[in-house]
Amino acid sequence: MDHSAYAELLDLLEKAARLGEVQSLLHWDEQVNLPPDSRDARAAQSATVSDLLHRASTDPKIGSLLNRLEAERDSLPAEARAVVREARRDYDLLVRLPDDFAARKARLDSRAFHAWAEAREASDFARFAPWLEQQLEMAREQASHCGYSENPYDLMIDLHDPGMTAAAVEALFTPLRRELPELLERILASPVRPPEGIFRGFPVDRQRSFLEGVVTRMGFDYRRGRIDVSLHPFCSGRGTDIRMTTRFHPDNPLDSLFSSIHETGHGLYEQGLPAEPAGTALTINAGMAVHESQSRLWENQICRSRPAWAFFEPRFREAFPEQLARISSEDLYLAINAVSRNPIRVDADEVTYNLHIILRFDLERRLFAGKLAVRDLPEAWNESTRALLGMTPKNDAEGVLQDVHWSGGAFGYFPSYCLGNMIAAQLHLALRESLPNLDALLREGEFAPVLAWLRERVHRHARTLPLPELVRQASGRDLGPQALIDYLRDRYLPLYS
Amino acid sequence: MDHSAYAELLDLLEKAARLGEVQSLLHWDEQVNLPPDSRDARAAQSATVSDLLHRASTDPKIGSLLNRLEAERDSLPAEARAVVREARRDYDLLVRLPDDFAARKARLDSRAFHAWAEAREASDFARFAPWLEQQLEMAREQASHCGYSENPYDLMIDLHDPGMTAAAVEALFTPLRRELPELLERILASPVRPPEGIFRGFPVDRQRSFLEGVVTRMGFDYRRGRIDVSLHPFCSGRGTDIRMTTRFHPDNPLDSLFSSIHETGHGLYEQGLPAEPAGTALTINAGMAVHESQSRLWENQICRSRPAWAFFEPRFREAFPEQLARISSEDLYLAINAVSRNPIRVDADEVTYNLHIILRFDLERRLFAGKLAVRDLPEAWNESTRALLGMTPKNDAEGVLQDVHWSGGAFGYFPSYCLGNMIAAQLHLALRESLPNLDALLREGEFAPVLAWLRERVHRHARTLPLPELVRQASGRDLGPQALIDYLRDRYLPLYS
Repeated sequence: MDHSAYAELLDLLEKAARLGEVQSLLHWDEQVNLPPDSRDARAAQSATVSDLLHRASTDPKIGSLLNRLEAERDSLPAEARAVVREARRDYDLLVRLPDDFAARKARLDSRAFHAWAEAREASDFARFAPWLEQQLEMAREQASHCGYSENPYDLMIDLHDPGMTAAAVEALFTPLRRELPELLERILASPVRPPEGIFRGFPVDRQRSFLEGVVTRMGFDYRRGRIDVSLHPFCSGRGTDIRMTTRFHPDNPLDSLFSSIHETGHGLYEQGLPAEPAGTALTINAGMAVHESQSRLWENQICRSRPAWAFFEPRFREAFPEQLARISSEDLYLAINAVSRNPIRVDADEVTYNLHIILRFDLERRLFAGKLAVRDLPEAWNESTRALLGMTPKNDAEGVLQDVHWSGGAFGYFPSYCLGNMIAAQLHLALRESLPNLDALLREGEFAPVLAWLRERVHRHARTLPLPELVRQASGRDLGPQALIDYLRDRYLPLYS
Repeated sequence: MDHSAYAELLDLLEKAARLGEVQSLLHWDEQVNLPPDSRDARAAQSATVSDLLHRASTDPKIGSLLNRLEAERDSLPAEARAVVREARRDYDLLVRLPDDFAARKARLDSRAFHAWAEAREASDFARFAPWLEQQLEMAREQASHCGYSENPYDLMIDLHDPGMTAAAVEALFTPLRRELPELLERILASPVRPPEGIFRGFPVDRQRSFLEGVVTRMGFDYRRGRIDVSLHPFCSGRGTDIRMTTRFHPDNPLDSLFSSIHETGHGLYEQGLPAEPAGTALTINAGMAVHESQSRLWENQICRSRPAWAFFEPRFREAFPEQLARISSEDLYLAINAVSRNPIRVDADEVTYNLHIILRFDLERRLFAGKLAVRDLPEAWNESTRALLGMTPKNDAEGVLQDVHWSGGAFGYFPSYCLGNMIAAQLHLALRESLPNLDALLREGEFAPVLAWLRERVHRHARTLPLPELVRQASGRDLGPQALIDYLRDRYLPLYS
C-alpha cells in the first residue's frame, strides 16, 4: 500500500471532519443559546463554514489520492479498503455539486428553520410553504447533479441509508401497512385503557436531576458530552463532545425522560465509535437507520420493559413522592406503554409511530414525483392521518408543521426511523440470545452488559460494513419487518388483553 | 473610486470576519460548555478554523485590491480611506507570518489554557512554565517575521493599541509610579476602614437575577447577547451576539455584580458599533485600551459612584433583605469602594489596580528583553508585589498564575487596562461637562443618557480614528495620566479622610 498517500488522505479527511464538528456546534448553539437577533449573523457564519467544509471535502487532492489507492485496491488492508470505499462515495456525492451549493444550502437551512419555528408557533403553514418549496427545489437540484434526475427521492433515501431506494423501503413497509392497523385496532378495542392526565406539577429541576441519573446509569459519559434544553430534542456532535438536548414540562415528565433516554441511545452510539482516524469509515456512524436502532432499542425494548421499569419505578417515586402518591404501579406502567391515536409523531407510541413514518414517506414520494403540490400538503397530511391513524389534526401545528426535518431539507430521513425500529427489534432478539439473564440484569439496573454487547456487535464496526451486512452480523438475521411485528405483538397484546 | 474593487474588498473582509466570529464562539464554548475530555478535539477544531481564518485574512486578492485602492487614495471617500488603511495594517501584520502560524498558535492557545487552569488549581507554576516558554517563543517568532526582531515587545503593545510602544507606555506610567503609592499610603493610613467578611450566604440564583436587572438597566440588549458562567469573567462575540460571562460565590456578591457591570461595559461598546460592513474599520472596536475605558467607566466612575449606588442600594437590599440587614449604608458603600493590599488583580481596587498593571508591564518587558527567565518568574513576581504593593502572594495561584492572559500568549495586553483607566477618567470629565445633571440622572437610575453620549462620542466611530485622535475628540484632552490621578484623589481621599 502507498502509505504516504493513505496518510495524506487521512489528514484531509480529518480536516473536513473538524470543520463538520464546528458546523455541528454552530447548529447546536443556534438551537440552545443563540440570541434572537443574531439569526442572520449565524446564517452567514454557517454558510461560510459550510462553504469551507464543502471545499475541504471536495479538495481535488482527495480525488487523486483515491485514484492512487484504488489502483492498488487488492493490496489494501481491509480497514484501508473500507476507508477508501466510503471516502469515494462521499467525495463523488459532493464533487458533482456546484461550488456554492453547500453555502446556499446552509443559509437556506438556517432561515427555513426559523421560518418553520415561527410558522409552527402561529400554526400557519402558509408562512413556511415558500421555504419548503425552496428546500424541495434544492433537493431536486442536488439529485440532478448527482445523476438522480429521474428519481430524485431515491437520492434522498440513499443519503441517509446508503444503498436503499424508495422501492426497497416500500417493500419493507408493506407488511407493516397490513399488520399494524390491525394490531392497533385490537389494542384500542381492549377494555384496558392507559390513564390520562395523571401527571401534574413535576418540578423541572427534579425532572432534570432524575433524568441525569438515568442517563448516567445507561453509561453516558458526561466527560464526553452534555445535556441542554431546546425546542425539539436532538443529539449532535461526535466523539468526545456529544450534545444532547431535551425539553421540560411540569405536567409531562415522561416526555423529558423517554426523549432523553432516546437521545442517550444516540449519544452512547457516538461515544462508542472508535476515535481515530477522524472522519473515516472506521470512526463514523453507519447511517441513520442504525443510529435510530440504538436510540429505539434503549428507549423501547430496554427502558419501557417491565424489568427495567421495575428498577426505575421506586427511584422515580422517591424523586416525586407527592406527584405519584395516588398512581398505581400498573397505571404508571400503562402510561409508559400507552397506545393511542395521537397526531404528533414524537409523542406517538411504538405501534402508531411506524404509521406516522409511512404517512411521511408517502407524502415525500408524492411531493418528489410531482403528484402533490406544496400548497396542498396540509390537506394531504390531514387526509393521510385520517386514513392511517383514524383521526384529524386540529391545526397545522399538530399536523404538517410538527416536525423540524423538512425545514432543513432532510427528506428521506423519516424512513430511517422505521428501519431503525426494525433493526432494534432484531438486535433485541439477538441480545436476549446472548444474555439469557437480561431481565434479571435490567431489574438490578445493570445496563453495562447491554452497552458492552452493543459496543461489540454494532458500535466498534463504525461504517466498515454495508448496512445489510452489519444488520446480519449483529443480529444474525436479514433486515426485515417480522421481528418488529412480533415484538410489538408480544409487548402490547398481553398488556392490552 | 473603483467601486467594484471596494465591494470585493468588503466581501473578503466580511468572510474573514465571519470566521473570526466562529473562532470566538469556539473559544466561548470552550470556557462555558466544553466537556472536559474534548479539549484535544477542540484544539484541533480551533486550529483548523484559525488556519482558514489566516488564509482568508491573507488572501492575495486582498493585497491586490488594497494596491488598486491605495493607488487612488486621494479620491477615496473618508470612510473607504479608513477601511483601506486598517485593512492594510491587518493584512501586513499577517502576510508576514508563515502559513501554519495561525493554526500552531490556536493549538498552543487551547492546550496552554488547560495547562494554566490545572496549574492554577494545583498552585504549581512549574506545570505551566513550559507552555509559557512556548508562548514567548511564539511571540518572538511573530515579532521577527513582522520586523520587530530588535524590540519584540513593541509589537505586542502595538497589536493591542496601534501606534503605541513600550517606551510610550512607560512615559504614561511614570507619573503613576510616583503618585499612586503615595495616594495608597494616605488611604491606608486613614482611620476609616472598609468592613471585611460582612457578606455571607447570598443565594446564587438571586445574585443572578439581581445582576441581570442591573445589566438590563445599563442598556444591554439581551436580544443581541447573553450572560453565562465561566472560571474567569470575559466578554466575547460581536454585533448581534455578545457573550459575557461571570462567576458566582455566595459570600462575594460584589464580585459577580461589578465584574458583570464591567463586562457589560465591554458588551455595550460592541453592541454600539455600527453593524455594516462587517470586519472593517467602520464596525470594529478601536482597540483594547478604548474597550477597557468603556468597561472601567461603567464599573468605576459610574456604578461605584455615590449617586448610582444610591439608586441600586434599596434594590440590592430588597433582593437580599436578611443578608444585608445588619450592614449600614456607609459600610456597604465603603465595601464597594474598598482600598486594600490584595494580591489578586481582578479583585483589586481602582487605586492598586494600576500598580498590578505596572508590575506585569515590567515583568513582560524583562522577559522579552531576556533579562528574566521563565523559571525565575514566580520569585520576580513576588518581589515586585512586595515592592509595589507591600505584600507577598501566598502561593503561585494567587501570584504569577492568577491571570489567564499569558496562557493565550496575550503579552502587551495588560498595559491596555491602565491606558483604559486613563481614557475612562478623561471621558468621565467630558461626560460631566456635557451632562451637568449627571448625578441627578444616576440617582434616578437613568443610564440611557450616559450610553447615548458614549455611542455618540466613542462607539459610532468604531476604528475610523487613530487612538490619540479618538481620545482627543471624545474627551477634549490629549491622552495622559493626570485625569486618572485627579479622579482617584477626588473619589478616595474624601472617603478615607
